[in-house]
Formats: sequence, C-alpha cells, structure tokens
Amino acid sequence: MSSDITGERLNSLFRPRSVALVGAANKSTFSALAYRNLVEFGFDAHTFLVNRRGAETHGRATVTSCRQIGEPVDVAYLMVPQAGMPEALDDAAAAGIRNAVVLSSGYGEAGDAGRAAQEQLVAHAKSLGIALLGPNMLGFANFVDRIPVCSIPGLPAVAGPVALLSQSGASSAAMLEFATMVNVGLSHMVTLGNEAMITAGHVLDFLVDDPHTRAVAIFMETVRDPEVFRRAARRAAEAGKAVVVLKAGSSELSARTAAAHTGALVGDDRVIDAVFAELGVIRVDSIEDMLITAGAAAALGRLQRPGIGIVSISGGACDIIADRAEDLGAALPELAEPTRATLAQIMPGYGTVQNPLDVTGAAIIDPSIFTRSIEALSKDPSIGVVGVVQGVPWIDEGQPYFGQMFIDAIGAGMSAAACPAAFINQVMQPITDHTRAIMAKGGVPYVIPGLRQAVVALRNVAWWSEATRSTAAPTPAAAVTVPPAGGRRGQWSEDAARRLLTDAGVPVVPGRLVTSAEGAVDAAAELGRPVALKIVSPEILHKSDIGGVRLDVAPDSPSVRAAYAAVTAAAATVPGARLEGVLVSPMRRGGVELLVGVVRDPQWGPMLAVAFGGIYVEILHDSVLSPLPVTPAQARGMLERLRGIALLQGARGGTPADLDAVAAAVARVGDLALALGDDLESLEINPLRVEGSSVEALDAVVTWTRKDQY
Amino acid sequence: MSSDITGERLNSLFRPRSVALVGAANKSTFSALAYRNLVEFGFDAHTFLVNRRGAETHGRATVTSCRQIGEPVDVAYLMVPQAGMPEALDDAAAAGIRNAVVLSSGYGEAGDAGRAAQEQLVAHAKSLGIALLGPNMLGFANFVDRIPVCSIPGLPAVAGPVALLSQSGASSAAMLEFATMVNVGLSHMVTLGNEAMITAGHVLDFLVDDPHTRAVAIFMETVRDPEVFRRAARRAAEAGKAVVVLKAGSSELSARTAAAHTGALVGDDRVIDAVFAELGVIRVDSIEDMLITAGAAAALGRLQRPGIGIVSISGGACDIIADRAEDLGAALPELAEPTRATLAQIMPGYGTVQNPLDVTGAAIIDPSIFTRSIEALSKDPSIGVVGVVQGVPWIDEGQPYFGQMFIDAIGAGMSAAACPAAFINQVMQPITDHTRAIMAKGGVPYVIPGLRQAVVALRNVAWWSEATRSTAAPTPAAAVTVPPAGGRRGQWSEDAARRLLTDAGVPVVPGRLVTSAEGAVDAAAELGRPVALKIVSPEILHKSDIGGVRLDVAPDSPSVRAAYAAVTAAAATVPGARLEGVLVSPMRRGGVELLVGVVRDPQWGPMLAVAFGGIYVEILHDSVLSPLPVTPAQARGMLERLRGIALLQGARGGTPADLDAVAAAVARVGDLALALGDDLESLEINPLRVEGSSVEALDAVVTWTRKDQY
Repeated sequence: MSSDITGERLNSLFRPRSVALVGAANKSTFSALAYRNLVEFGFDAHTFLVNRRGAETHGRATVTSCRQIGEPVDVAYLMVPQAGMPEALDDAAAAGIRNAVVLSSGYGEAGDAGRAAQEQLVAHAKSLGIALLGPNMLGFANFVDRIPVCSIPGLPAVAGPVALLSQSGASSAAMLEFATMVNVGLSHMVTLGNEAMITAGHVLDFLVDDPHTRAVAIFMETVRDPEVFRRAARRAAEAGKAVVVLKAGSSELSARTAAAHTGALVGDDRVIDAVFAELGVIRVDSIEDMLITAGAAAALGRLQRPGIGIVSISGGACDIIADRAEDLGAALPELAEPTRATLAQIMPGYGTVQNPLDVTGAAIIDPSIFTRSIEALSKDPSIGVVGVVQGVPWIDEGQPYFGQMFIDAIGAGMSAAACPAAFINQVMQPITDHTRAIMAKGGVPYVIPGLRQAVVALRNVAWWSEATRSTAAPTPAAAVTVPPAGGRRGQWSEDAARRLLTDAGVPVVPGRLVTSAEGAVDAAAELGRPVALKIVSPEILHKSDIGGVRLDVAPDSPSVRAAYAAVTAAAATVPGARLEGVLVSPMRRGGVELLVGVVRDPQWGPMLAVAFGGIYVEILHDSVLSPLPVTPAQARGMLERLRGIALLQGARGGTPADLDAVAAAVARVGDLALALGDDLESLEINPLRVEGSSVEALDAVVTWTRKDQY
Repeated sequence: MSSDITGERLNSLFRPRSVALVGAANKSTFSALAYRNLVEFGFDAHTFLVNRRGAETHGRATVTSCRQIGEPVDVAYLMVPQAGMPEALDDAAAAGIRNAVVLSSGYGEAGDAGRAAQEQLVAHAKSLGIALLGPNMLGFANFVDRIPVCSIPGLPAVAGPVALLSQSGASSAAMLEFATMVNVGLSHMVTLGNEAMITAGHVLDFLVDDPHTRAVAIFMETVRDPEVFRRAARRAAEAGKAVVVLKAGSSELSARTAAAHTGALVGDDRVIDAVFAELGVIRVDSIEDMLITAGAAAALGRLQRPGIGIVSISGGACDIIADRAEDLGAALPELAEPTRATLAQIMPGYGTVQNPLDVTGAAIIDPSIFTRSIEALSKDPSIGVVGVVQGVPWIDEGQPYFGQMFIDAIGAGMSAAACPAAFINQVMQPITDHTRAIMAKGGVPYVIPGLRQAVVALRNVAWWSEATRSTAAPTPAAAVTVPPAGGRRGQWSEDAARRLLTDAGVPVVPGRLVTSAEGAVDAAAELGRPVALKIVSPEILHKSDIGGVRLDVAPDSPSVRAAYAAVTAAAATVPGARLEGVLVSPMRRGGVELLVGVVRDPQWGPMLAVAFGGIYVEILHDSVLSPLPVTPAQARGMLERLRGIALLQGARGGTPADLDAVAAAVARVGDLALALGDDLESLEINPLRVEGSSVEALDAVVTWTRKDQY
C-alpha cells in the first residue's frame, strides 16, 4: 500500500486547497470543534459542510453530498459512522476527492470484527484511488499554511519548526497545550490513529521535505511500517532533522495493552532501542521530554561537538545539573587550559573555574561576568553547546522585571557565543507573552524549561548530532563466502556450522572430524595436548546433556579411545540420530566467553546480539543488540556497551583482549548473516572464546528458515 | 551547639512578634525586597528599620541601632557587611533580640579565611545567647502567620501544607515560583545558607510540631548535623509527615563542588541513600519532583496500601504510565476478581478491564464511567491510591470549559473513593485561578501535573507510607558476647576474628589452630576429608599472596605435613611476623560467596554492607548498604536488593539458599558491630559461604580504631 502514498499525494492532503467536512452536524462535538478551528484559522472560505439532510449547520448552509460541491476539493474529513463509510467514500471519489481523513473508530482497534472492517475500508479506498489518514483519530493541522483539519481544541496561534505526530488522539490536545506552554512552535500536528494506509513513516518522509519543519516529535505505540519508517528516518538524519520518539510499550504491561488496543505488533522493546539508536532516532520517556527535546533540536541544530558547558549563578543548580548529567549520561567536559585561563580573568578570586561554572554572587554586581563566561565557554574545544541557567518569569506583575539586566547580559553572551547556546529556566514553567517580551528585550531566542529537562534535551541533541553526523548510508557488508542455497535447510551440525563460519572468515577453534577411534587417536596425537571430543549430529542439539562431550582428554591412545567409545555410545542412545563423526579439538581453558548471535526480528530483520556468557546473560541480562550491517567499529561499540566490558579489558587479572580482533569477528558474523539473507533463521556462537589476541568460536549452531531437512 | 536550639527558640524565630531589618538601605536590593515583602504581607507595623545613619529608608523613618527601638523585637535580619557584624550582634543582644538571620556571605563558603570568620561569628553569637540562622542566605517566610523575613521575590499569597527548606538561596525564588505554579501551598520557606548554628535538622524538628505543616521539602548539598537530622526525621516519620529531599552531590563532580563552596563534608552518596531509606526520607532528583512529591504526600497522607490504580480515557497515557511505572518501580497491581467483575459491568464490551484502566471513548458519551471506575478501583484490596488522568486547562479562553462534565464525573469519583485519589494532568502545566475554578466546580481537590511526575510522586508516597508505617524506634540490636575492651586494638588475626564471630553467634567454618605438624595431621585426620591450611598472624594480611594458604590438602599425614611445612616456611619470609599457628579447616567447595562487612562512616556511623564476591563486587559494584541496627528481616531485604540475588535463589542449577539463615547471620554481624561501638574500625567477612541451609564465615578481618598493638 505504501507505494501509493507519494509525496505529491501527501502534499495535497496536508496542504489542501479546500476541505469538505462530511457528517457535519450541530450536535457533534467533533464537527463543531473542526469547524471552529477552520473559522479561527481563516480557512472557512475553503470549507464545505456536507450534511445528509442538508440542514443548516454551525450557522452555515450545507450540501447533502460531496458531489454537490461543484468545485475541486482535496480532502474529505469523514465524521460519518462506520455504516455510512462506504457511501461516503464513494461520494468523495465521485466528487474527485483523493484524500480522506477518517475520524470514525471501531476499526483495527476494536477486535476481530473491527480489523475486518478496517481491511474492507482500505480495500475500498484503494479501489477508489483514495489515500486514507486514520481511521480512529482526530485529524491534522498545518500551522504553516494555517489549515486545521482536526477536532482538537487549543491549537497554537503561531507556527514553528517542530512537527508533532501522534498515534493517540486522546493525548493530542495535552501535547499541543504543552508545546504552546513551553514555546515549542509547531509546523504540523498529525494524529495518525490506526494508520490503515498512511503511517508515521509516510508523514515523516513528507516532513523531511517540508522546509518549515526542522524536527519531528512522534508519540507512537507501534511502528506499523518498519521499512517506510526506516527509510524516512534515514532521510531525516541526512537532512539534519531530528526525529524524537516517545514509543510506548517498553513495559510488558503496556506492550500487551498496546497490542490489544491497536491490533498491531508492538515489537521487542530492546530491538526498538537498537533500531532507533542505529537510525539516530532519539527516544524519550515522557511527553514533556519529547517536545522539549524536539524544540531544542530545532533551535540548536546539529552540534559540532558533544560537550555541554553550563553557566549559572546558583551553585545548587550547578550541582543538580552535574548530578543529573552523570545519571543520564550527558557530557560536561573538563575545560581546556586556555578556557580556564580566560575564565580565571573573568571570575572573582573565590570562584572555582570549572564546568558547570558557578559565576558566584559577583555576577549580581557585574552581570557582564555572564556575558564573558558564556563566550569563553563557547570557544572551548570540547564544548558544542552552552546552557545558561537563570530564572525568567512567566507572570506579569505589572512592573519592570527586576532581573532584566541578567537576561540582557545572558542574551549578549548567547549572541557572541561561538557555538549554539540555550537559556535554561531553573524550573519547568511556561513561556508567556510576558516571558517572550523579557527574552526579546534581552536577545534571548530560546529557553529550555527546567534543569532535569535541560540535561535530557541537551544530552539528546548531542547524542543525535554524533549519531547522524556521518550521513553516508551504512557501509555495506563485506563480501563473504556462503554455501549453496540448496543446502540451507533444517539445522546444521556443528561441523557444518564450523565450516560455514570458517569460510566466512570467522575464526574457529581447530578441529578434525573423525569417524573412528583410530582417527581420533591420530588427531589427538597430532595436537599433542589435551583435547575435547564432541559428537557431531544434526539431530543432537544438546550434546553435553546426553554425554556426547568429553573435555580435557589426555592425548594418549587409551584415553582418547575411551573417550571416543563413550561419546559414540552416548550418540547411539538417541533414536534416529545420524552420527556424522566425532570432532577432536584442542582443549581450551580460561579466557573470557562471549555469546554472539543473529536472530531475525519479524519487524526489523536480522539483529546481531553480543553478550558475556554465564551469569552475565543468565542473571544480569547483560547483552547488546544491533540491526545489521554492523561495521567492526560498531561491533566494538557494542562490546563497550556491555556492563561486563572490564572482563575483556583485563579485570580480575586476565589478559586484556584485543578488542579490535573481537570486534572484527563479531562484525564478520553479521556480514555472514546478511549474506545468507532470509534463508537464515538464527546463528549462534556459544562461546566465542577470547584470550588476549586469540579469538575463536568454540561451538556454533545454525538454523535455517526452511525446516525440511532433505 | 545544637542543644541551644530549642523548639521554643525556633518558635520565637519563625513566629516573631516583630522584626528589625538591620542595614536597611534604599540602594540595597536585599533590603528593598525584604521590606516590600513585609509590607505586602501586612507585617510592616511590626517591622523596624535600622540604618546606621538614621536616614529615611523605603519611605520610612529609621533608628540607628536596635537599642533605640525601645520595644521587644524577636528577630534581627542582618544585612550588614562582615566587618560590621560583631557590632550588629552586640547591638541586637543589647536590645534583647535573641535571634539573628544573617544574609551576609563570605563565611564558611569562602575558603579558609571565611571559615575562620564563621567560627568567630558563631562564638560571638553564642556568647551573647543569640541563635543564628545563616549566614549566606536569603531569610525565611512564615506563610501561615504571614511573616516574610526574606529578600526573595514572588512569595505565594496563600499558605498551604508544605514547608520548603533550601540550603541554596539562589534557587529559592525558582522553587517558590514552581510551587505556586503547581498549586503546592507552602506553610514556611526557610533558606538555610551555611547552617552555622541552626541546621536543616533543627528546622525540620520544629516543623514536625507545626500543625500547619504536613510535608517538608528540603534542597540540600550536605547534611550538616547528622544526629539532629536523624532524630528529626524519625520524629517526622512518627508524625506521618513526609520528608522529601533533593540532595545534591550524587556525582563525583558535584560532591567536589559542594564541598568547595559549602566548606562541608558531602558524604558518600550511597551512604546517604542508605540512611535516607532507613529513615523513610524520600529522595528525589529534581526541584519539580521534590515539590510535586511533597505536595502529593501532604494531600494524600499515608497510604493504607502501596498499590496504585490508574484510570484514563487515553490509552496512550495508560501505556506511558505503565512504562514509567516499570522503569521507576511503581506498583500497578493486577486487580482482584471482584474488582474486575464490577468494572466489567461498567466498561463497554470492547474495553479491557485491567490496571491502568482505559475507560475508552464510551466515557465521552457517559462520563459516569469515570465516577464508577474510580470508585471500583478504590475498593480493590491492593489499591492504596487512585490516579485519574485527564487534562484540565490553565488558560482562560473566556468561555465555559467544554470538558467540565468530565471533571465533574472525576470529582464525584474522587469523593466517593474508598482510598485517596489524585487527579493527574496529562502534561506538566500550571494550576491557575481558571484551573482552580474548574476543579472547585467539579469537586477535584488535588492535581498532579504530568504523567512521569505523577508516577514518581505516587511511587514516592507509596514507598514512604510503607517505610514509615511502623513508627516504632528501630529494634535494638540483640545482645552479643563481646571481648574485653582492653584487647580491642590493632588488627586481629584470623583466629581471634573467628572467635569474635563465633562468640557473637555468627556461624564460622570449623577450624583448629595448631602449632605443629603433628597437630595439623591430627586435626586433618579428625576431619577425615580434604582440608585447608592457613597461617594465622596479625602481621600478615594477604596470606595467599605470600603462599601462606594451601587448599584442598588430602587428610593423609604426608600431604598435611608437606602443606604445614610449606605455609610455615612462607610465614617465615615475612620479617617480624608473629606466627600464632596454622588453622586447619575442612575444605569447602562450590556454594555462593558473599561479602559481609561493617565500616564506619564519618558522618553516619557504622554501615553494614553485603555483596556477592567476585565480579559482582569488582566489576558490577553490586552491593547494598544499611545503617545499623539491621534486623534479620531488614538484612533479608538487603540481600533481595542485590542484582545477583538469583544466585542465592538457585539460579544456574545451584541449591536455593536458606535466605532467612543468611539474613540472620548478616544481622548478627551488624549486632556485633554495634555492641563493639566506636572501638571497631571495620569488620569484614570474606567470604560468607552459602550453600542451601549451610551458612559459614570462611575468613574474616577485624580492625580496631586504636592502632597501638600493645
């Protein structure tokens, strides 16, 4: 369906020349709100009311069908009940209307019957060539062109750089109110509802090309069209437009709930995290942080450097920011020596030159300390944005603001700064006309409300700036040798899996597959050191459990023979198991054991996972995921995000690992999985043993999508 | 000093009959603000202005000294420079004034010279019998009695149930503004400054007895008088008044900064966490959460049950709340069957009966669904508070609020509820007169602004309710046998430490101290199983490192003799080490190893720590602290807070441990440490081995405060 949703089509939807309100009725709150919005935004001259009985509605004459309108209309806003929907769509199509915005509920969100109704609705719309926004939503508003096609109260009067998308209609009014309150201007607001045809990804794609939109905030419970979303998010990153997503469903409870009331897959939340991280999509956890972060990204743009510099006259505020920066992972870099020297000239003797910078009470006597400190911090080689903490009032007390001189001094510093700067309000409070007047007088363009919120927003913008700095498409996977497609079925034996890895360039512990005790004795003698013997059979997954593994076998003939006899006897106890042979490998001890695996997410495709073995993965659930492809540098980043990374760095007296060698092997596993495409169901190396520069897969399991073994 | 600060004295400070502004001057912003506040609150008739030159100030006549006032004054508000402070104090004392509020800075916060000046200031005040608030602060305000003695703008016009204390003056105006914005009414606001004499604990203690104060919010960088604070916090818990603290200094950076600019110990942040947890003090991480939580605690009081029930018409809001509840550890219990049955009657068929409860669009048609759902949830046996999510506007659009019917329905439900209920605004926004009118009309007494904030506040109130439910003083430590005080010095050998533990009732692995190879052979033969041999010497701490330990020694004579010879030879290599003997113990294998230790925090006294050994403590820093005493039940709670607790519950195929037995041993260690009092510097059992119901200390180190060995 997504191929029908072109940019041109979305342009006619979101910038319609005229709109028909179908199902307009005095007693309908939805109708009244929609019409009131159109009047307030001065679009009523391009609005037609359609009422089946032709009754005067909202004080205006109506027509009984779209066909009666008699001039081109771009959007039908359908407030008709489900039963009347087919007729309404037919009428709209007959009138040449190519876009429908469907408020009505009782579709995909309402059980099996609703899902069936939604399928019919989509099929019908498609058959008529109509693009459909909704159903189960409250419309959209284009604030740039002043076209509100929605039943939401409290629309902002002025447009701005942030587009707001919401799958929830019920929360959209609150989001608008909050955006207005904190001075985050909106270019568009689109409620998405069930996304039966047009999804968040389509709208995002449209907004990437909208010159008025500089950041996009999305509240979603599910990503309905992963590929469309992924492509649009990549384009947004290239265009330098931040995408900020409040994605519900991180808890087991909400995932279950969202699945129930949207009728859609919510997806594994850790996969969502990994995919968003890879796409440079900022994930937030509250409506407030979503809008404040989007506003900050739109106002500040991509930062040149990730470091945050803080200036405040409140030592307490400096401390709170330092604490939250540590908790939340925001970088407050130490200042370079030249910056410190400059600040030492500016600050009073009893002050401490550091970041966050407490300008002390001296700035009350001499506000220019603010100006000069901001400028000095902005020139530090590791600072990408300067945040200046101060209060700015929102209530007009009817007298000149006594703190205006500080605002003026801060504004002067922000203008002179060599990098973007943000004014940070000490607490979260509104930006009113009174506030805006004080800001304008002082030359302060932009305020983030609240210390915690500011740390979150600046951290997010800094992260996004780094994550999307390289706008190149992901490096394609390196070429790897893969087996013929014909044999890719069922589950492969360890021996086959070993060959697959070896051919692909993944280091594997040496081993010889033998089919006789003599062969085993020869193999062990050749190695000349203790060995491991393991049975190889595609039918036997848990070799150890049945006694099919002997470890630490001395390489003398009697020991090896005894071990060979024991493991083959064990294999014989499994009915129907074909024994391919016995694998003889040198015994490995010590080192650190990793798990490296690839699984296929139903929504997002192959995901590479790395973890430490043992308690790390079993008890601490310490693993890191990433969509493919993964470069060696990215693989190294994954390893470094493991909580147990110290194990690879030589903690507890171990040899520090060659992390680049480990990362190369991990990345290679990802390349192999990509090269195998949809044929591969899963691939797991357990363990990948690491000791110093030695990296070796000791065991692996490969499972193919096709289950027929022959 | 704290003994001088009686409740009666604080009453005369915070409820003065009259106030002298000393250093009043037209050109001083501090003076102008203080006087304006007194005028605005109608206290100017009880205010005297003291100006050295007797110049007319703020349009009023002044006196040149306090002595000239000629009638009783309770508080001198000192805005004089540091140089004039001794004279000002003498004058105040001569005038019979017994309380001084000292704004001036340059004391404890300003380096060594400042600290010396502060010591002089305190000594001087004490010699005059004056109680001192400050220095380096902005005053206080008593909103109940309408007495503002402070230089802070924007004081709230109406009093309420929350007292606000702040060590920071610079952030106090922002805190007041925010409290007003979110409708958190204040009884008192006290800036504490350097707390040279009166500390947060003293003020808290005073507020526990103030009938108007139901919760206390404190912003602090350091707890200056731990014992006073601890006692006051316990009294607050008994009185059912929540104490909510934003304590800066959790990051290394802010701890360093706070130490620099307050000149005080900031303390180990994990110790603060442990102490607050034990006292039932709620710790928050933002100004917003501090005031919102305090407001919620004051409005809701102690909850009968910790479970939170949520009602909303927005499925999206339900999901956000469920996600944040999981992240932040708030309990949204599953509903009991009778509750579900009742809700099934209320909800439309397509709705889902669960918690959070999405009342669906059906509530638009029939708002009584709100009323009845709230009531039903409030009667659930696990629900202690019901939160109802809805928007309520703050801007007056000049027309009746279209959503009033929902507010009315919610208010009716809140009134009928069997437990406390809170209205939750979907986003953080102000409560204005317009909002209050809508709330009053609908009978909604109380609103928490924002979903995330609501989850934090309700979780905090629920936690506090449980933590302070038992108002009994902590159970005294059980009696333990302790060694004579005379021998408590230096560091004890393992054998002495073993006896100390054994006598105190802490289980210790059996062992015999032998002084000859024959003795070792006998001991091993008696055990009849592999043994460990360890040298015992108070001078040798790291026995293994020098070869003083042999593990897994077979109990035959040659093996034991060889091992004995080896470890005693190793001991002989350490110059000056006295060998007390060799400890022979049965060899233990497997099981789970814990560390149990007691260290003395300089501020808070002995702290008990438990951790798993190995990577848990070395790499994951997975340990839990608690002040003493610790009951067995509390010790069990500590174990359960370890991330690796699954290890004790039988993860990875181990035997589940008898957690009560482990907890009993841990608590016993704490009792022993308490009984030893200040003599004990530290005590560490490493490891405490646990396997099933077997709990044994395998090794222990005891260090005494007195270092002289003889």
